[in-house]
Amino acid sequence: MNGAESLLRTLLNNSIDLCLMNPGTSEMQFVSALDRAPGMRSVLCLFEGVVSGAADGYARMSGKPAATLLHLGPGLANGLANFHNAHKARSPVVSIVGQHSTQHLPFNAPLTTDIEQLARPVSGWVHTLTSPGRMGAATIEAITAALQPPGQVATLIVPADYSWCEAGAPGEAIVRPVRELPDPARIRAIAEILRSSGSAALLLSGRALLDRALVAAAKLAAATGVRVFADRYAARMQRGAGRFAPEKIPYFPEPALESLAGIEHMILVEAYPPVSFFGYPNLPSLMAPPDCPMHVLATPEEDGTGALEALAEECGARKAPGPAATLRPELPRDGALTAQTIGRTLAALMPDDAIITDEMVSSGEAVWRELEGAPPFDYLAVTGGSIGQGLPVALGAALACPRRKAIALEADGSGMYTLQALWTMARENLDVVTVIFANRSYRILNIELRRTGAAEAGPRAAEMMDIGHPNLDWVALARGQGVEATRATTAGEFAAQYGAALRDRGPRLIEAVLAD
Amino acid sequence: MNGAESLLRTLLNNSIDLCLMNPGTSEMQFVSALDRAPGMRSVLCLFEGVVSGAADGYARMSGKPAATLLHLGPGLANGLANFHNAHKARSPVVSIVGQHSTQHLPFNAPLTTDIEQLARPVSGWVHTLTSPGRMGAATIEAITAALQPPGQVATLIVPADYSWCEAGAPGEAIVRPVRELPDPARIRAIAEILRSSGSAALLLSGRALLDRALVAAAKLAAATGVRVFADRYAARMQRGAGRFAPEKIPYFPEPALESLAGIEHMILVEAYPPVSFFGYPNLPSLMAPPDCPMHVLATPEEDGTGALEALAEECGARKAPGPAATLRPELPRDGALTAQTIGRTLAALMPDDAIITDEMVSSGEAVWRELEGAPPFDYLAVTGGSIGQGLPVALGAALACPRRKAIALEADGSGMYTLQALWTMARENLDVVTVIFANRSYRILNIELRRTGAAEAGPRAAEMMDIGHPNLDWVALARGQGVEATRATTAGEFAAQYGAALRDRGPRLIEAVLAD
Repeated sequence: MNGAESLLRTLLNNSIDLCLMNPGTSEMQFVSALDRAPGMRSVLCLFEGVVSGAADGYARMSGKPAATLLHLGPGLANGLANFHNAHKARSPVVSIVGQHSTQHLPFNAPLTTDIEQLARPVSGWVHTLTSPGRMGAATIEAITAALQPPGQVATLIVPADYSWCEAGAPGEAIVRPVRELPDPARIRAIAEILRSSGSAALLLSGRALLDRALVAAAKLAAATGVRVFADRYAARMQRGAGRFAPEKIPYFPEPALESLAGIEHMILVEAYPPVSFFGYPNLPSLMAPPDCPMHVLATPEEDGTGALEALAEECGARKAPGPAATLRPELPRDGALTAQTIGRTLAALMPDDAIITDEMVSSGEAVWRELEGAPPFDYLAVTGGSIGQGLPVALGAALACPRRKAIALEADGSGMYTLQALWTMARENLDVVTVIFANRSYRILNIELRRTGAAEAGPRAAEMMDIGHPNLDWVALARGQGVEATRATTAGEFAAQYGAALRDRGPRLIEAVLAD
Repeated sequence: MNGAESLLRTLLNNSIDLCLMNPGTSEMQFVSALDRAPGMRSVLCLFEGVVSGAADGYARMSGKPAATLLHLGPGLANGLANFHNAHKARSPVVSIVGQHSTQHLPFNAPLTTDIEQLARPVSGWVHTLTSPGRMGAATIEAITAALQPPGQVATLIVPADYSWCEAGAPGEAIVRPVRELPDPARIRAIAEILRSSGSAALLLSGRALLDRALVAAAKLAAATGVRVFADRYAARMQRGAGRFAPEKIPYFPEPALESLAGIEHMILVEAYPPVSFFGYPNLPSLMAPPDCPMHVLATPEEDGTGALEALAEECGARKAPGPAATLRPELPRDGALTAQTIGRTLAALMPDDAIITDEMVSSGEAVWRELEGAPPFDYLAVTGGSIGQGLPVALGAALACPRRKAIALEADGSGMYTLQALWTMARENLDVVTVIFANRSYRILNIELRRTGAAEAGPRAAEMMDIGHPNLDWVALARGQGVEATRATTAGEFAAQYGAALRDRGPRLIEAVLAD
């Protein structure tokens, strides 16, 4: 068995059965081996940022790694921005990157570059295979590293000749590491804080924003009065009617500081101390009060859900408030098309168990406010701030959960970074409804320009934030990649088109031209 | 004057008056300063790979650096693949990358990453500004580094607060470094080789493929019988009727080895020893005969043109062959649309002083053979092998040479990596005719699969090289970004559409659906 087949079979032996790829010459052996190692689903993407973003979305929803296959340093380079997001999302990914054959590498051919150096800033583990005989073992190391709690990008660089040489048996299945519960003494100490302080807060991130953890947090809030906050950059939140809803810390520092003012103890659950997205003149970076001590209930590596349950037990918090009823807003049938009317439409028509990806940027807050009463959904946020994650993450989520509707809420500016995701949605007939919030502007930058202390935008600065000359035609961009698409310019048009898109199966795109 | 304005004025003081950008919050001060520092042309791109590729194309044609402005590590990450190409093209670029403010950086906000590490593999010089007062001086260092012969990517990382602080006076104009002539002794030694060996070869790269160098090479060939080869990955070649045409070393190793067989002395002029693009089982990487000594007439840093002229003088080679007449092929007016008929159409209709970018991949050789007799043109090749350089390089070339027609010859697969370049072509009304060679396949990979010793493609492997399900509609993708576009499916349609596109000014795209 050659190296490529040994690698594929090692992945399969570990239930890693999805490979997202944009391969080149150095990776042809892996492509060829797909026909000899059945069970690996291979999904082609036309740009590497789609590969890495989809692997992130898949990991967030399935909890397990996909493999990715990219072509040498430049192929990896194109995937880095979304690997950065995956890294910040703590998503497990086994990233396979081809390298020139060992004989060829010293000759400095055009594609030669330092792949390890490129991989390191976004990977928890980087290794270049040193002999074909180590293929099975090295792949096991990569899988082990990817699964290391809380999850990370593990990059295995494979010289081309090691994939075509005889490589021996594949690696066997490993035991998946489990997250550990924090020390009971730590839980007791934090219980004591909750009992004694009238103004403590929990900050939840990681897997502590999923159902079981939310139930425990709700009990704690009811019993102790602790406030509960959600890290707005967490990889996955479960939200919607019937669920306890932690407060999402606002994006801009002024309201974020205000929301956390007066807190005397902050208890971190798989979370880091809350910081603002950007630094601004004369504003702090830390959003908690400067003298507020931080207590770690569970590190990102530990089992925050179990820790919350143990803490609730310790506090005698056994009663969760009754679930709030679903409160769908009325469907807006006429009027101007705004982020708010879109949000209301989304809530009014929310299908069961939807998965929402959010890269709406400046439209996000208005939409979010409308979603609280909608039936339960999973919400996948921007984690690392690299623009261009929304469509690929939705693609990956749809691969992980083929029976659930994925809804990609995307801005027109951010969608352009990885619009190639639409083609793979069409090819795989994935059930993703994309809504493009078209304000024909990098509007967030118009806001940020003033915030960073720069003057009002002059005409040339304004031009650099205007993406409306020429207007992007998202209907054409989607149809050009095989995705059915329509354009809505009023609330009524949007409601009708969105309703129709939800009733269909398969990818649909609606360009929502915003009035505001 | 704040840091951003000081940086812009330092660039302007050094005649760097084009800034390609995709800025974010951390770069807002630079955007704001555009209105206070007139003279800087700012060009917005919707994806960072367009920024870096356009800077490469601009440098290749203008010989001077553009500035680029990208947003933090992830923004740089998206630009890396085309910076890799710029690096291999030896293109001077002043790459400005924003960083979080120094106060904010330690807080590990979502976008935080190791920018220096990302920049290093593609940059000749990397520096993070250490104080606002050093802005002028550091920018001068960056410009000096970029201009260091033969040219390189110089990356200056600027913390946001250093762009909003008071920063003092901008840096003054520097004296541009000149390339040095090699030692006369080296030239005499090589002249002696040419006199004594019946089978020597010159390998030209860098600026030694432009007119003046070609004249000297022609004289040397006529006088001494030396064979003259062109590095096929050189940044810029001047070609076409009336010019001496060095042999282009073939892409695949077998014909490349054959073309260089029997050569006893290889003389490198701004070139490295010729190597194959990829390594293959049982084939060497070095394309010259293994016992053939390499002699350096001029390193990439030196003045290869002057060296060739001095060598011609030393050899008494004063007579160039008379220029070959322009030999336009007849315009194909009917029949199937193939790479060959497209090549013939391009040659038949070649405008004066056209600039051609080549990312045709598998169609390239057939087109190239048809271009020899066409009127003179500049030819910009793939340099570093990162896919997605063709459209951005054409965009940059058009910015550098607004009175010349740029013709982007692009494959459908490779075009998808940076299709966002079309929007900037429309926005800036650049005179670029894009021809998409649509074979609906990563055809080169079908060839490479067999070459790397993998078996014939099985059905699942074949699917990973097929980009035809669904077909990309390049007419829609272009119109969606404001570029007029048509589709040709026969030689006659292509001739008519291409002729019309050449007569117009402004960006046009033709999707040429290949019959073969």
